[in-house]
Amino acid sequence: MITRMSSLFLRTLREDPADAEVPSHKLLVRAGYVRRVAPGGYTWLPLGLRVLRKIEQVVREEMDAMGGQEIQFPALLPREPYEATNRWTEYGPNLFRLKDRKGADYLLGPTHEELFTLTVKGEYTSYKDYPVVLYQVQTKYRDEARPRAGILRGREFLMKDSYSFDLDDEGLSESYRKHRETYIRIFDRLGLKYVIVAATSGAMGGSASEEFLAEAATGEDTFVRSTGSDYAANVEAVVTPAPPARALEGLPEAQVHHTPDTPTIATLVDFLNRAGLGREFTAADTLKNVLLKIRQPGATEWELLAVGLPGDREVDMKRLEASLEPAEVAILDEADFAKNPFLVKGYIGPRALLDNGVRYLVDPRVVTGTAWVTGADKVDHHVVDLVAGRDFTPDGTIEAAEVRAGDPAPDGQGTLVAARGIEIGHIFQLGRKYADAFALDALGPDSKPVRITMGSYGIGVSRLAAVIVEQSHDELGIVWPRAVAPADIHLVVAGKDDALRAGGEKLAAEFDAAGLSVLLDDRTASPGVKFKDAELIGVPTIVVVGRGLANGLVEVKDRATGERAEIAVDEVVAHVVGLVRG
Amino acid sequence: MITRMSSLFLRTLREDPADAEVPSHKLLVRAGYVRRVAPGGYTWLPLGLRVLRKIEQVVREEMDAMGGQEIQFPALLPREPYEATNRWTEYGPNLFRLKDRKGADYLLGPTHEELFTLTVKGEYTSYKDYPVVLYQVQTKYRDEARPRAGILRGREFLMKDSYSFDLDDEGLSESYRKHRETYIRIFDRLGLKYVIVAATSGAMGGSASEEFLAEAATGEDTFVRSTGSDYAANVEAVVTPAPPARALEGLPEAQVHHTPDTPTIATLVDFLNRAGLGREFTAADTLKNVLLKIRQPGATEWELLAVGLPGDREVDMKRLEASLEPAEVAILDEADFAKNPFLVKGYIGPRALLDNGVRYLVDPRVVTGTAWVTGADKVDHHVVDLVAGRDFTPDGTIEAAEVRAGDPAPDGQGTLVAARGIEIGHIFQLGRKYADAFALDALGPDSKPVRITMGSYGIGVSRLAAVIVEQSHDELGIVWPRAVAPADIHLVVAGKDDALRAGGEKLAAEFDAAGLSVLLDDRTASPGVKFKDAELIGVPTIVVVGRGLANGLVEVKDRATGERAEIAVDEVVAHVVGLVRG
Repeated sequence: MITRMSSLFLRTLREDPADAEVPSHKLLVRAGYVRRVAPGGYTWLPLGLRVLRKIEQVVREEMDAMGGQEIQFPALLPREPYEATNRWTEYGPNLFRLKDRKGADYLLGPTHEELFTLTVKGEYTSYKDYPVVLYQVQTKYRDEARPRAGILRGREFLMKDSYSFDLDDEGLSESYRKHRETYIRIFDRLGLKYVIVAATSGAMGGSASEEFLAEAATGEDTFVRSTGSDYAANVEAVVTPAPPARALEGLPEAQVHHTPDTPTIATLVDFLNRAGLGREFTAADTLKNVLLKIRQPGATEWELLAVGLPGDREVDMKRLEASLEPAEVAILDEADFAKNPFLVKGYIGPRALLDNGVRYLVDPRVVTGTAWVTGADKVDHHVVDLVAGRDFTPDGTIEAAEVRAGDPAPDGQGTLVAARGIEIGHIFQLGRKYADAFALDALGPDSKPVRITMGSYGIGVSRLAAVIVEQSHDELGIVWPRAVAPADIHLVVAGKDDALRAGGEKLAAEFDAAGLSVLLDDRTASPGVKFKDAELIGVPTIVVVGRGLANGLVEVKDRATGERAEIAVDEVVAHVVGLVRG
Repeated sequence: MITRMSSLFLRTLREDPADAEVPSHKLLVRAGYVRRVAPGGYTWLPLGLRVLRKIEQVVREEMDAMGGQEIQFPALLPREPYEATNRWTEYGPNLFRLKDRKGADYLLGPTHEELFTLTVKGEYTSYKDYPVVLYQVQTKYRDEARPRAGILRGREFLMKDSYSFDLDDEGLSESYRKHRETYIRIFDRLGLKYVIVAATSGAMGGSASEEFLAEAATGEDTFVRSTGSDYAANVEAVVTPAPPARALEGLPEAQVHHTPDTPTIATLVDFLNRAGLGREFTAADTLKNVLLKIRQPGATEWELLAVGLPGDREVDMKRLEASLEPAEVAILDEADFAKNPFLVKGYIGPRALLDNGVRYLVDPRVVTGTAWVTGADKVDHHVVDLVAGRDFTPDGTIEAAEVRAGDPAPDGQGTLVAARGIEIGHIFQLGRKYADAFALDALGPDSKPVRITMGSYGIGVSRLAAVIVEQSHDELGIVWPRAVAPADIHLVVAGKDDALRAGGEKLAAEFDAAGLSVLLDDRTASPGVKFKDAELIGVPTIVVVGRGLANGLVEVKDRATGERAEIAVDEVVAHVVGLVRG
């Protein structure tokens, strides 16, 4: 295929768009791949649509290869199925809702678990029908609070979502494993640098959920990786290694001290170090007790929860909330304190919590035999050498403390460092949540119903076009990997004289005949403008037909490395075919 | 590609869906191609999606071949551009409207003229940039009052819409002509039987708008065709042949008659025939004057309009409205009559109309020299032998009368018959309406701005799947044309024994190796069930591996004709390749 730039609907821009912050947004707009229509809404221009279709095709091929069956749902969906799972409400303002002419409620689908579940229920009845994996590549809608970064976070975007339906947990694990391998193949084919991070702490069973994060300094997602192994995880999923329990024998008795004017951990530590207790204290020796209230789904009453953690760590609310999911979490207000006078603000200790039946969870570092400075449940008083497992026994542990660079990696190898990434895929063992909501059962071999278990798996297809650019560009423009480039060759006719133009046309025809797609710059623009556009547009191989043609030579330039080679014009097709076919 | 029915997400149904009236709706649901999710919202199951993609690909190939450039807009669009053209309001309840989380107004795009215009304005500046044809294949939304007939009239559907941008009228005509030829190629490749009908009466310039209607008894659109030529037109577009004017000399004088008790045309004709006037009257001799009011776009005042037509014809409101577009039309109410006492209800004649400055348009059959019985502007009185061109001169003619089977064809060859069809394509010379709304100009060679002229061209891509079934089915099921069939061959293993199963697998592999797509019925179901499903699903060639295999024979059945042939198993691949490749 030959695409002539003289008639191509493409105008490159010299300036970055005013609203663009990240490289992919700037470059995709400047190079004429996308145009903004509304906040989070973009038009794909001809070259952009080609890239998008190529990405889509890689995803489709691999999904088909793993046995996925493609179907397609409407994007405009009735309220009822989402009401049945409570997501009509749970989605809050992220959902685009509308009414039809009769006043019936509709939504624009943000994800299709409900519809897939109902569709399988509609078609399948017997255990012999399972397992099945269905998928779609479809336009999705989310009313993001802050659509940003061009197509990286849009409100209308293309997504591949697939769903597995299995008779038992082993089946689900297998479907999950196959998706994981398929995703690796897809992202490898697209030339992406990515990590697979545990997305939850594993409370649901090890690998119940993992995210594929493309490494990018501009990424919105923070994750941690180990310096000593290939461990990587979402911060929410980091499991704090617990030190071994210590012997209780010989530990000093707990002592209450009058500690006036110690409103903060720092002033408390100062006070203790000046009190002549015969040893040096740090914030890590103090046990800070944070009071919260939580409410289980469907419950009306809130219950108190205390979280104890070393005083040198802050609570990470995202980690805390992830640990308590699906319960709601809130900070105590004055009325709560008033209702519970045993809570002495600033001096809350384990004793009063446990004596008053408040659920008390501690950081995993608070193991038996560790001694702490903590509140004595009395204004201006703290207790020193309060020993876990001797003086108090918490109700369990919780991952609520912040994770810091330098913390030991959970796998015991190396320490953690923070990194940033962009979510490109998510695989998730849903279990029976949706099957329960819609009573999706198979009739088992013994004629008894078997509740189906599901997985859901997503890839942000349109986002990938931007992620690839984030990872593959330089100061001149985009550097497309061959798998998704809008053409195999960018053929620049560097001059206006007839011989050059004819030479360019002839060469384009030869490349085309060899099965390569050619972006032919046959415009009347100056060679300088053409070279700049070629770098910006980012086709991996640039062939220049210029003055050398008189001597039977053309130039072949590698967009990524900048390397140039003079190649004889009658050898260049074979040469470039070799480059393209690898 | 081999698709195994043992694992295919497909369940055929024995019963027609309760809400289905037309064959395509019944069959596409029963054969497992689509499933209903909401009124006018359908899911494409695996085989359905394949058919849809094949149709889409035919459309895309032909659009590319004519030089169209594919882009893609969002479906969720901001209000502003549609406000600028007044379509935000004009669309009325047919438009899905919604608000985002910030309260901004959005719509789901029913068609994208505004966005295409703005996009071209954003990229192009010079006359050298033109002409350009852009298109998209995209999901569209219309809140139909009565979504019906499955995917024939949905509220979410796939459409190809393209737009041409030209510097002058000649360019537009050429873009229009190229689209027309492209549409003919597309519909021919899809094996459709269709007519191209004039969609307007040509007031805008001959071929300014044509519709492609697929012939189907279940179609919603009525059109007329000639028995004597290939003339076909929308009823709205039929031009009434005017008889030649007659000489005025020697015609009797007009005479007013007292005609009591003649509230209807029939009673008036009866009265006249009993009045001894020396000749026989029919309803066609009477001139009925219908009073209306019209309002031009943007105007606040209504103006009176009288339409005179032979008494044997009813007013066809759609034809009348099409003739008066873009003005609004309404029937007079009592207050209007009260305000205009010269209008004597039941006895309105041309005299009072013309004397009082009411615009008066007549049916084209009311030519100079024709004599009429009509109202005498006085209760219980009619005038006989009121002659057009002598006793009254109308302000012009109008196409407002109903068209009847048996009317002479406008091209003078044959008579008209009514037929029904389904709109599958529409080509339309928009002119400068949208370019004017957004000031889309090109800088001309003389540096003066040239206002661009546009065409818009649509094909209902998802609808085509249903239209093909409407035209190609029998009592057993669907009969797909090869170009869009979900597979090249339906290979039925008619039995459970190992030799048959192995023979089926081997043959499927051979067909696959020969580049054919195979739907392999490897289920454990009975041969009878499999044969029924094969007829229902409608793959054009059915190959049966059955008892004959022991003698080295398989059966090849043509789905359309029902013809069967026994073919040697080692020749069947070559035989079927010949059938498929034509």
